[in-house]
Amino acid sequence: MSRPIVTLTLLEIQAKLGGDLVGDGSVSISAIAPLADAVAGQISFLSQRKYAPLLATTQATALILPMEAAGHFPRPHILTANPYLYFARVSQLLNPVVIPDPRIHPTAVISSTAKIGRNAVIHAGVVIGDDVCIGDDALIYPNVTIYHDCHIGDRVVLHAGVVIGADGFGNAKDGDAWIKIPQIGRVVMGDDVEVGANTCIDRGALEDTVIGNGVKIDDQIMIGHNCRIGDHTAIAACAGIAGSTIIGKRCLVGGAAMFSGHIEITDDVQISGGSAIIKNIKKPGQYTGVFPSLSHVDWLHVAANLRNLDSLSRKVQALEAQIQSLTQPKTGD
Amino acid sequence: MSRPIVTLTLLEIQAKLGGDLVGDGSVSISAIAPLADAVAGQISFLSQRKYAPLLATTQATALILPMEAAGHFPRPHILTANPYLYFARVSQLLNPVVIPDPRIHPTAVISSTAKIGRNAVIHAGVVIGDDVCIGDDALIYPNVTIYHDCHIGDRVVLHAGVVIGADGFGNAKDGDAWIKIPQIGRVVMGDDVEVGANTCIDRGALEDTVIGNGVKIDDQIMIGHNCRIGDHTAIAACAGIAGSTIIGKRCLVGGAAMFSGHIEITDDVQISGGSAIIKNIKKPGQYTGVFPSLSHVDWLHVAANLRNLDSLSRKVQALEAQIQSLTQPKTGD
Amino acid sequence: MSRPIVTLTLLEIQAKLGGDLVGDGSVSISAIAPLADAVAGQISFLSQRKYAPLLATTQATALILPMEAAGHFPRPHILTANPYLYFARVSQLLNPVVIPDPRIHPTAVISSTAKIGRNAVIHAGVVIGDDVCIGDDALIYPNVTIYHDCHIGDRVVLHAGVVIGADGFGNAKDGDAWIKIPQIGRVVMGDDVEVGANTCIDRGALEDTVIGNGVKIDDQIMIGHNCRIGDHTAIAACAGIAGSTIIGKRCLVGGAAMFSGHIEITDDVQISGGSAIIKNIKKPGQYTGVFPSLSHVDWLHVAANLRNLDSLSRKVQALEAQIQSLTQPKTGD
Repeated sequence: MSRPIVTLTLLEIQAKLGGDLVGDGSVSISAIAPLADAVAGQISFLSQRKYAPLLATTQATALILPMEAAGHFPRPHILTANPYLYFARVSQLLNPVVIPDPRIHPTAVISSTAKIGRNAVIHAGVVIGDDVCIGDDALIYPNVTIYHDCHIGDRVVLHAGVVIGADGFGNAKDGDAWIKIPQIGRVVMGDDVEVGANTCIDRGALEDTVIGNGVKIDDQIMIGHNCRIGDHTAIAACAGIAGSTIIGKRCLVGGAAMFSGHIEITDDVQISGGSAIIKNIKKPGQYTGVFPSLSHVDWLHVAANLRNLDSLSRKVQALEAQIQSLTQPKTGD
Repeated sequence: MSRPIVTLTLLEIQAKLGGDLVGDGSVSISAIAPLADAVAGQISFLSQRKYAPLLATTQATALILPMEAAGHFPRPHILTANPYLYFARVSQLLNPVVIPDPRIHPTAVISSTAKIGRNAVIHAGVVIGDDVCIGDDALIYPNVTIYHDCHIGDRVVLHAGVVIGADGFGNAKDGDAWIKIPQIGRVVMGDDVEVGANTCIDRGALEDTVIGNGVKIDDQIMIGHNCRIGDHTAIAACAGIAGSTIIGKRCLVGGAAMFSGHIEITDDVQISGGSAIIKNIKKPGQYTGVFPSLSHVDWLHVAANLRNLDSLSRKVQALEAQIQSLTQPKTGD
Repeated sequence: MSRPIVTLTLLEIQAKLGGDLVGDGSVSISAIAPLADAVAGQISFLSQRKYAPLLATTQATALILPMEAAGHFPRPHILTANPYLYFARVSQLLNPVVIPDPRIHPTAVISSTAKIGRNAVIHAGVVIGDDVCIGDDALIYPNVTIYHDCHIGDRVVLHAGVVIGADGFGNAKDGDAWIKIPQIGRVVMGDDVEVGANTCIDRGALEDTVIGNGVKIDDQIMIGHNCRIGDHTAIAACAGIAGSTIIGKRCLVGGAAMFSGHIEITDDVQISGGSAIIKNIKKPGQYTGVFPSLSHVDWLHVAANLRNLDSLSRKVQALEAQIQSLTQPKTGD
């Protein structure tokens, strides 16, 4: 089964998605491509001003342009306030998700007590535990595992290898040994969440791990037990979020960022990739904690000095005191 | 198949787990919950002094309390030296692992030369290679892969997506190209190990990769070939341990910590989350190496200064020399 | 099916792999082992001078030695310019990959439009999407998922749990919500690539994600959409490479290194493990950016000073100015 080709006229696109159509709306569009690569029959878009020179040479049949480009392009185009968003929507029209037939692959292993929503797609090798609830139009790629009792919202996409609801990391010390604390919470995931390949979200210890609506989670991420992630937060690949951490709404978490457990990040925080967040963040804004990379030889010097930073700081204090005694009139003068 | 509900009287709990029973032992308990959330029929526990005020308002039918709380709580309770550990054990009683029937799922693919221990549970989609040995009462969740010849101890739990015994990363240079070095060691895992979702432990190159007894390994961790992890060490999520590294007994490795290869960490070491360990650690204690996160603007300044730390250090040395020449009597005076 | 034992005479080995045979070529060799562990019937090798003392005591029947060792070892040996490489090749002879029968496991789910190369091995639980092309002699371990349209070269090895071609992380903002950008590129992987367990390589957004020939990728790695990795680059475990990053040929990327997106790394760069690379690297060489680990108490001091580094730097500047005014003759003197 190969991908289907969808062909729409520019007028049909505008009828579905809005925007101001300029020029011949009857041209046929069957694919989307960057300005430099587009050929006849394709639509392209201008989302950043720096690419504007490519408008002169692109072979695209039609374009998605920002309002301020009105009147500058002779070929058919659509003017819109947000060409990048419009591009996303056009691409969705031209590249619909291919729905397999049957929707639920015969090799998927689904508990008889699980509830699967209308039109949900479950690919090969997926394993779904007891009493799991999967929302309508969910799309579960191959080899995903969902443990018992978890709740997956409508239109959620789980990519291959994702594990939802494995036990959180909870143990109590008994002498040298660790005694397992049963993880009896669930993972409760809102609607319109997407989770990238091989990401794990652990079930709660006593309460639930909660993923808000519209949260976007990239590949190879780990979200620990009892975490709560606010609506529309996006988390880039390889991030690790330790247990009981709360992240607010509309946050952006860069790749490979890590969060200590039991901390709270307010709404609208941006964390730069690779940063380690070990304390609460109460104020929106961007936060960073990355050792800048240097040539290895330079790093050796910087690292050696860094280890002695406390002593350097005390030396400067001592110097300040000495200078002060040199420049101030002596007592009794 | 939904989770079974286990109901025990407080007296039955105490008979199994010990502790001092105070009050009516005939009350029925069927779940465990935090102090703030517990309702009638549930047991709760006080593991940290800061939660003591909740004892006045909790709706729990019974409690697990530290010895020093004796006489302070009117409702039925059990006094114990370690309420957190007692909580773990009560929770195990109330939340037994659900054993599927049959224990070995028909979709599991198990080599005819593998040996599976008594009462081991093997979930759907698990693949077990030639001559693998799985211990008694092991619990292997869905979509786990265990390569040939590996040894998994008794009562080991492997969560979904775990890969045991894939080839270590061994290649020899031949001009520009890499020539693969066959990885002919095994993974040998002791008893009572738990491994979190999507974690990989690679087989040894020539010798074995060895995981001690009672080691607890969280999700999304990578342990390279020839590593040896000492008994009862716990490793939090997203840690990466490069090949041939030896970690001692009873260590605690924080999340996203990384270890260079061919290093040795002694017993009873704690590594803070996000730290990069690139040298041997010979002394027990806590070690940390994390760039503190700052507002992005502050970070820009700190990072710029950090790059110039070597020059800053030399400036301070020069200043010290100048001050010394200013404050010391001139030669010849 | 247990591993077969291959037995070769030293002469047969030399006939296949070259090198100078010294001594009795008729001795039988059936395994390879380190100098310290080797027993009769085994071959060992000297790849680092520091192990030379073990030559006096090793029980190996034969040895692989560097040219400069000529005349120093009485037992049969082969002299070669690169004993480590020779060891890799001998080990390949003695430890051939076990080919299952049938080559394609009946539980693998392979689209009818996928093309599978000659002699390719596809293990249990593998899922291969529409129009995927798998090269000759490819070796796909259990529970791998390959999404539609991806191209896998000849002799590629994909370890268990690998996901090739999941959607890249592309979303456009629509108010608070994220609108998915369909990921319509592919993953195109050259020949002789090896990919470690649970690694993910995402498909391109509009263009392809490209992995060059002979690239070696360890476990638990994430390579984002549109990345291009040059031939013969090796990437150690837990590395994360954000989207649209280009890495040159023959690079070495240490474990847990992370790369921001949209940057370019030239050929022949070595990145130390744990480093965060956030800018282009235009010059070959080794780069490092790791906070050195310290005892936790020392770290607390260093981290506190690090936060104040900007102020420390300004203090030093002020001191320099003060000293200068003290040591220079006053204007007007």
